[in-house]
Amino acid sequence: MSGSDTGHGPGGPLSAYSLDELRGRHSAKWREYPPEVLPVWVAEMDTPLAEPIAAALAAAIARGDTGYAVACGLPEAFAGFAARRFGWHTDPAAMRLVPDVMAGILEVLHLVTEPGDRVVVNTPAYPPYFYWLPRIGRQVVQSPLALGPDGYRLDLSALERDFAAGAAAFLLCNPHNPTGLVLTEEDLLAVAALADRYGVRVVSDEIHAPLVYAGARHVPFPSLDAPAAARSIAIVSASKAWNLAGLKAALAVPGPEARRDLARIDAEVSESSGMFGVIASEAAFTAGEPWLEALMAGLAANRALLGDLLAERLPGAGYQPPQATYLAWLDLRALGLGDDPAEWFLRRGAVALYSGLKFGAPGRGFARFNFGTSAELVADAVGRMAASLDGRSHTARTGALDAL
Amino acid sequence: MSGSDTGHGPGGPLSAYSLDELRGRHSAKWREYPPEVLPVWVAEMDTPLAEPIAAALAAAIARGDTGYAVACGLPEAFAGFAARRFGWHTDPAAMRLVPDVMAGILEVLHLVTEPGDRVVVNTPAYPPYFYWLPRIGRQVVQSPLALGPDGYRLDLSALERDFAAGAAAFLLCNPHNPTGLVLTEEDLLAVAALADRYGVRVVSDEIHAPLVYAGARHVPFPSLDAPAAARSIAIVSASKAWNLAGLKAALAVPGPEARRDLARIDAEVSESSGMFGVIASEAAFTAGEPWLEALMAGLAANRALLGDLLAERLPGAGYQPPQATYLAWLDLRALGLGDDPAEWFLRRGAVALYSGLKFGAPGRGFARFNFGTSAELVADAVGRMAASLDGRSHTARTGALDAL
Repeated sequence: MSGSDTGHGPGGPLSAYSLDELRGRHSAKWREYPPEVLPVWVAEMDTPLAEPIAAALAAAIARGDTGYAVACGLPEAFAGFAARRFGWHTDPAAMRLVPDVMAGILEVLHLVTEPGDRVVVNTPAYPPYFYWLPRIGRQVVQSPLALGPDGYRLDLSALERDFAAGAAAFLLCNPHNPTGLVLTEEDLLAVAALADRYGVRVVSDEIHAPLVYAGARHVPFPSLDAPAAARSIAIVSASKAWNLAGLKAALAVPGPEARRDLARIDAEVSESSGMFGVIASEAAFTAGEPWLEALMAGLAANRALLGDLLAERLPGAGYQPPQATYLAWLDLRALGLGDDPAEWFLRRGAVALYSGLKFGAPGRGFARFNFGTSAELVADAVGRMAASLDGRSHTARTGALDAL
Repeated sequence: MSGSDTGHGPGGPLSAYSLDELRGRHSAKWREYPPEVLPVWVAEMDTPLAEPIAAALAAAIARGDTGYAVACGLPEAFAGFAARRFGWHTDPAAMRLVPDVMAGILEVLHLVTEPGDRVVVNTPAYPPYFYWLPRIGRQVVQSPLALGPDGYRLDLSALERDFAAGAAAFLLCNPHNPTGLVLTEEDLLAVAALADRYGVRVVSDEIHAPLVYAGARHVPFPSLDAPAAARSIAIVSASKAWNLAGLKAALAVPGPEARRDLARIDAEVSESSGMFGVIASEAAFTAGEPWLEALMAGLAANRALLGDLLAERLPGAGYQPPQATYLAWLDLRALGLGDDPAEWFLRRGAVALYSGLKFGAPGRGFARFNFGTSAELVADAVGRMAASLDGRSHTARTGALDAL
């Protein structure tokens, strides 16, 4: 088994743990599949906690501070981060604590739409949208992004068609998961204009906002100068950038004209958040930027490495380096592996990608690859994918996989 | 300000922190009110973490293990605890991870009832029931417990009337919050017989089960020998007994005939739980019993102390020592403070009890008092209540309170 580098290499936080150490984790990424399988599916990173976060959590343990969550200093911490990072000046008093971004989206849709309403999402889309929106009685309308030779872009005519057909809300995901598309201010203003024309409320999932690479810029939707932006609500979190998904905290942040809507959220919602999520996120937004810079340097290197490795080992795989996040949306249609290449790579390569089929109709023949890990494990994963195509039997293919 | 005992006194884990240390906490109990107010409302305890829990969380921090939650060893840990503590032998493979007991109740009601269905609860009842059940389109039917000179008991004729009127489910809460009533096996079998007669599914909130005092015994509903028990699902958690409410993990545990229903729960639900909740709860159920015994000794002493103090300082307050939990349901109707004595004590005594009005119709004139704290703070709280009735102005009454 390769990839057992225990040193803090040039990958910064991405190379802190050996594969054996990672296999000792309890989280979904490392427990969903048997140990022969290398996981590159769910959006967790293989990083250690940033030191200020680890210190804040250790202090919370010493205080026995494990009771019900309230927002504490998290809104102020995010406001400071948003001002420094995005030039977005937003009022902490208007923000509301929610358990995670998905829960925040559902709560906001509960506040600003009605049962039976249609909610537009750009596909491919984060799989839980397709489960949770119908659970609260909202219909998901799939509005595909346009795929061109240079990658994905917003398809404004498709969006207008779907808004005009009677949508109550647009669940914008920017930066976009899984494509890594970062919409420009011009794009976002065009979205706002359409939303205003058709009376559509915008709910903006900005969970990947801290993870934008050089060359692109994150513009918070509620910060735009447009009526639809003023009426929008963004959901933000430290969970993706500082790897805190399991600690359960996010914030709903309203545009100036959405404050009253968001204020109707019940205190029960905030109290179902995670206390350690609040504490860790406050530390992240307050003192986590040096760690984030080191992370981004490592991710940028991995983003390039993945391109090189794919070009060399799987030249048929389509890969556009994402403008944000550690998620790569691979176009594997040319490999002849059918609708679900992730299934092939799992069973023949002992490497777990996230099946494109779970991302909506445009995901057929695609898979999502998480490069938020060490360079060694990125290489290991691509090596397993390539080997499975060579017809070489991989040592990791065992009976345990047949039972999956 | 009294209650600044920093030693580990005879109260065991209940006296580990000084009041100043507790005021440094970030949790709801200590942040909801201004620092002049002594909080005895929400069900958090003022204890340190049990050592095995603190150690497990420290190890998780060192591993950076903050990704998405899966159940890991928690079902096995609970199965061991349930067998040792309740003689309940239940299959870990049938259990499902949920973020907390309330979320688990909602998910189970989603699986076994339909929108618009009526769900019976015994009142007074845990306040979030009244918010969340309507949120998923279920009607709450209040079926009052009977209050006699010896305290609360089940009112089987009221329950039969409410079942007969067309209930889909009974949300049993046993041990009962806020009364501390622990139902006997005979009571529970009578409930099961009624549920069978009227085709009512039983969902059993057993969050307080580890906290039963000598003289009573917890009988898990799904462990009973009755068809309704076999079809029931219990929701359990380490959160109340080991003070882990903010870490977000609980388990749904089915009776033998409810396994298939529970298996339909989506993996998205489990993954929205807290990773540190899973890790802490597994440690609690595996290695947390010595700490629990020390806690119960301290709680038993506080339970008696509260009775003595109330008899001496507030002889008009009705108090039945609970059979379980650190929650005391005080009958304050004789004090002449109106429907909401908690409001009086907050504004005149700078002590925050949980308003009885939030527990349903029978809560008028009542309030819930949390004695999961040091003996000093129990005495401080009762002293503040008594002083407010003496008409003495309390030093803690400040302008900050007027703004509440």
